[in-house]
Amino acid sequence: MKVGLDVGGTKTDVVAVDAGGAIVGRVRLATGWGPEAVTATVIDGVRALGTDAGVDVAAIRSVGIGIPGQVEPGGGRVVHAVNLGVDELDLAAAVEPVLGVPVRVENDVKAAAFGAYALHGGSGSMAYLNLGTGIAAGIVSHGELWRGARGTAGEVGHISVDPAGPLCRCGQHGCIEALAGGGAIAERWGRPGALPVRDVFDAAEQGDPAARELRSGLARGVASAVRILVLTADVDSVVLGGGVTALGDRLMADVAAELAASAEASPFMRSLRLEERVELLPAGSPAAALGAALVGAARDSEEALAHG
Amino acid sequence: MKVGLDVGGTKTDVVAVDAGGAIVGRVRLATGWGPEAVTATVIDGVRALGTDAGVDVAAIRSVGIGIPGQVEPGGGRVVHAVNLGVDELDLAAAVEPVLGVPVRVENDVKAAAFGAYALHGGSGSMAYLNLGTGIAAGIVSHGELWRGARGTAGEVGHISVDPAGPLCRCGQHGCIEALAGGGAIAERWGRPGALPVRDVFDAAEQGDPAARELRSGLARGVASAVRILVLTADVDSVVLGGGVTALGDRLMADVAAELAASAEASPFMRSLRLEERVELLPAGSPAAALGAALVGAARDSEEALAHG
Repeated sequence: MKVGLDVGGTKTDVVAVDAGGAIVGRVRLATGWGPEAVTATVIDGVRALGTDAGVDVAAIRSVGIGIPGQVEPGGGRVVHAVNLGVDELDLAAAVEPVLGVPVRVENDVKAAAFGAYALHGGSGSMAYLNLGTGIAAGIVSHGELWRGARGTAGEVGHISVDPAGPLCRCGQHGCIEALAGGGAIAERWGRPGALPVRDVFDAAEQGDPAARELRSGLARGVASAVRILVLTADVDSVVLGGGVTALGDRLMADVAAELAASAEASPFMRSLRLEERVELLPAGSPAAALGAALVGAARDSEEALAHG
Repeated sequence: MKVGLDVGGTKTDVVAVDAGGAIVGRVRLATGWGPEAVTATVIDGVRALGTDAGVDVAAIRSVGIGIPGQVEPGGGRVVHAVNLGVDELDLAAAVEPVLGVPVRVENDVKAAAFGAYALHGGSGSMAYLNLGTGIAAGIVSHGELWRGARGTAGEVGHISVDPAGPLCRCGQHGCIEALAGGGAIAERWGRPGALPVRDVFDAAEQGDPAARELRSGLARGVASAVRILVLTADVDSVVLGGGVTALGDRLMADVAAELAASAEASPFMRSLRLEERVELLPAGSPAAALGAALVGAARDSEEALAHG
């Protein structure tokens, strides 16, 4: 039995996976704030599998943790997980003595990419494009995660696709994240609300010009990211996930229209059949926690998962 | 002994490589036009190694051919090599019976990427960015060429980085190739000359506004391609080659200034140290022919070279 956790900004998703890859238990709990509370969340989450989901915790052989921030490949240390109040934390070292099994830590988008790939059938190549507060992708090919040389593989959010576009928090103009990141959209929308991007879509449908511009920028940014992933890494498919994809078909319709417009203008783009290669991760998908479980169980994650 | 040929639009570069990887003979000849003349060029080129470069042609064990156009992975057939007057040609089948050794064919940019990687020390990861009539890249990591799923890996030339940019021959606006491709620049410059891009640089230095705009677009396009390759594939280095790089330090100074401007604006971009990761392939480098020789000698090129 392997366990995977997806430690998110507000909630942590925990799954237990059997030897055949099936999810046999799942719990969710609130994520604590700061290094000690995040450590406690992981320990509580694993224990809750036993108390709340009937999982035999004595049968757990490994734990994998997906967490936002920079994680050293094959390591257990996370830095700059700003949404969790964590500047630096050796999470594996903190929880291993308590849990009594090997623990591996992975960047949450990379873990989700690995999980989405497994759920997607585990063959060919795929990019997982995470549309959350920020935007980043994980690329998986033939079962291997593309890690890159210096930790920026899949950081498509900070590619500028419009020099006249909005200022990004990174300092550049027209970054994909400035156009399509949930955080940037909420900031530019500037009105209170639990789900600002949904409010933007609603207001755009009622004709609000500011909302229409934000909504069209979101589709442009996502379509640009899809084109970049296909024209650089040439993945078979691009799977969209993350908080902003809660918009579901409304988002997909906009992205499809944007891709159709470039296919209309360009025979070359048309030949790529991008609209057929983009998919949405189903709402509530356990991809991120499942991917973390797979990372945690890899005997030597450097060998088994790293490439690039 | 392995032989590699880089079949270019005007000239074909031929090298003989010994078991230790050293180039022991090199000849150049004019490339013929059309399927039969291209086939003859390859045969003549290999024979010229013996007659003109003192190579023992009886010791040749394999031949690899880099050629513009689409090449099936591990195959010998090239399609759409428009600059050579070739619509479709099974080049391996045409030359193998005459040369009497196994022949493999590879896309010229991918072959050059493989050769540049070998010349670069053969470790880590590298993108070879070819700045010729068009723009495309080849990505090599840990000795493996990233092939992708459907033949568009490294096709960064058709990523739009400016919706208000010039119309690309592909139908989109602001493609990297429309800004920085030698063909697009020559077309927009529109004045006769043997080396239009050099003329553009000269005229820009004399203050010609149209030339200054073209020159700044070239630097913007190349810098965008570098950023995209690092933020998607996260390669250690980006090596620039191809006809436009004959401009040498003049081109590099412009690209470095463009990268410095984005590093100035963005701490994140600054952290990537892009200006230290971009290099120029030396003028006259045998990278493309050497890479073709390595591809030709791979026992099973699918296994040894393909990935992605």
